[in-house]
Amino acid sequence: MPTNKQPRSLGIVQPQTFKSQQALTLDCGQTLESYELVYETYGELNATASNAILICHALSGSHHAAGYHSESDKRPGWWNAAIGPGKAIDTDKFFVVCCNNLGGCDGSTGPTTHQPDGETLWGADFPLVTVRDWVRSQHHLMLHLGIEQWAAVAGGSLGGMQALQWSVDFPDLLRHCVIIASAPNLTAQNIAFNEVARQAILTDPEFCDGHYVREGKVPNRGLMLARMLGHITYLSNDAMGEKFGRHLQRDKLHYDFGPEYQVESYLRYQGEKFVGTFDANTYLLMTKALDYFDPARDYGGTLAEALRRSTAKFLLVSFTTDWRFQPERSEEIVNALIEAGRDVSYIEVDSPNGHDAFLLDIPYYMGTLRAYLENIDV
Amino acid sequence: MPTNKQPRSLGIVQPQTFKSQQALTLDCGQTLESYELVYETYGELNATASNAILICHALSGSHHAAGYHSESDKRPGWWNAAIGPGKAIDTDKFFVVCCNNLGGCDGSTGPTTHQPDGETLWGADFPLVTVRDWVRSQHHLMLHLGIEQWAAVAGGSLGGMQALQWSVDFPDLLRHCVIIASAPNLTAQNIAFNEVARQAILTDPEFCDGHYVREGKVPNRGLMLARMLGHITYLSNDAMGEKFGRHLQRDKLHYDFGPEYQVESYLRYQGEKFVGTFDANTYLLMTKALDYFDPARDYGGTLAEALRRSTAKFLLVSFTTDWRFQPERSEEIVNALIEAGRDVSYIEVDSPNGHDAFLLDIPYYMGTLRAYLENIDV
Repeated sequence: MPTNKQPRSLGIVQPQTFKSQQALTLDCGQTLESYELVYETYGELNATASNAILICHALSGSHHAAGYHSESDKRPGWWNAAIGPGKAIDTDKFFVVCCNNLGGCDGSTGPTTHQPDGETLWGADFPLVTVRDWVRSQHHLMLHLGIEQWAAVAGGSLGGMQALQWSVDFPDLLRHCVIIASAPNLTAQNIAFNEVARQAILTDPEFCDGHYVREGKVPNRGLMLARMLGHITYLSNDAMGEKFGRHLQRDKLHYDFGPEYQVESYLRYQGEKFVGTFDANTYLLMTKALDYFDPARDYGGTLAEALRRSTAKFLLVSFTTDWRFQPERSEEIVNALIEAGRDVSYIEVDSPNGHDAFLLDIPYYMGTLRAYLENIDV
Repeated sequence: MPTNKQPRSLGIVQPQTFKSQQALTLDCGQTLESYELVYETYGELNATASNAILICHALSGSHHAAGYHSESDKRPGWWNAAIGPGKAIDTDKFFVVCCNNLGGCDGSTGPTTHQPDGETLWGADFPLVTVRDWVRSQHHLMLHLGIEQWAAVAGGSLGGMQALQWSVDFPDLLRHCVIIASAPNLTAQNIAFNEVARQAILTDPEFCDGHYVREGKVPNRGLMLARMLGHITYLSNDAMGEKFGRHLQRDKLHYDFGPEYQVESYLRYQGEKFVGTFDANTYLLMTKALDYFDPARDYGGTLAEALRRSTAKFLLVSFTTDWRFQPERSEEIVNALIEAGRDVSYIEVDSPNGHDAFLLDIPYYMGTLRAYLENIDV
């Protein structure tokens, strides 16, 4: 029975650190003898540890999925719209876990942390990691937390890919799998956009082969361009038209390279804001993880074969104007699940907001997520 | 009656130079006291000068629309598929004119040519020009060639915008207007892509505020990124998928920043090939001309008002998978023409090739163009 209680904020939340002493051999062949994952949890783990949900973050996300870090914190975690007491992912019922992925730049072991010697920054020497590697590291965290099976693994975009990979690699360790605004792999066009973003960073003279920190430099230009480009692919053509149209930034045309149209100004602002809060090596690594993701690859290229092993139930969500991962891409996963005889629910949410819709508080979307999770026995 | 003769190549063609002594006041307010346009002509102007067609080029095009410059020339002009004896734009019937636009980098006055003192390169001091400025300069060329009325003005993409502007600014000076894969103005998303390309160039340290030539430098990185990004928008998602899919470039994944997938390698190749053949200041200027184009602006924002003055007949062509200028954008022009009571024919060509389709020898497309032009009395 749906609850009608008022959704509330989680208030102040605190990150914790998991220090894994278990070695992790990565898809690239390198082994991390030890590593750390920064994570947050919301809600209480119940006595049988049956109410845990793992939330996986997307490209520029982090472990900070909901709540605030301090009273003066202006912006809550990236999925605050969905996570909290009385919200779709109800922390009165579930114990929610979210970690900063390996290779991230928010505290987990990655390019911005030190190598085992404790002195040398990883920088560009940090190995490229894959979605499979992340899932393996999240499994270590799961064991550390005393969780034997996730009630659900959930995520949007690159986060949805991790949820999908969980269902393939650890089929018995999750009861539900929630994949939002995602895809079974990247298209050539997706890879192409990533490659332009990477080249923007790699060719920035201040990139210094990825060792910019030790050189006292920052490849701001490259990271800014990458983020500007990313933003175009997150928003729909319609949403950009609605928001900016051809509105001028200044009183009249100036015939110079200042921002003539508001959309130029917006993009520059987004690019500049990102620089200084995100690490260029991590950005590169995240785009590579996206490119490499392809769970069907180990199963003769047939996604249904990969999914035949899974015992979870699935919820898939797509958004009408998402042109980064179109609804058709979600439907590929849905069709593979049907072919594999799995239990799957699917909704396509009507939204003008493009790929970014997965982060928004859209009633039909949140209502579906809420209804689906309410039906999970814990 | 359709002719069934075999289409032939124009063979060797030669550029000519028009030196205008007539001053040209630009939309930005600056005046060019004199300027040069490099142009090519194919076919013969008839006695009454009634068979002239002006072809307008797109972003990276030039005056070299068809034929070859030498016996050893490997690639013909950019619209060789359409222009030649027996081709859709039949040079046995028409006198075809195509000039390198003002601000271009193929010989016409622009950033790569000298200022009136004959010594100083224009570089970044060359003013930003608009589609309206181009049309005015093309009108000067028209007078120079002794042409009182074009049988047709035609172009694809940015070239189609010039054709549309001709019909608004010089409504009595063209009998037909052929607008292919174009749009009545750029959307916010179109402007956004242009802005990323521009920032790639403007923030390249070797750009030197646009005076890279005099500094002995070249902003290759920026121009390469701009071209890579452009290429993604010229091709359709489907065409990229068809051509590259997720095919690996090397024998296996290497987990490095070398090109893992073929599409990465292709994009880098396209970017590198462009650098050295095109000028960065011209690239900037072309993207600005695209942004500024908005013929409705002078007519209360209503395109039909602008077109009510025109006396030409129109042919509009769009391509199904063109997501840079979608068929809907062509239909906006068609609808404005209908509202203005103008004579308009329109076809949407089924093609997997995205925006680039306008350059290709697609039978239905070329057949329509041929049929339309065959019906023009000269």
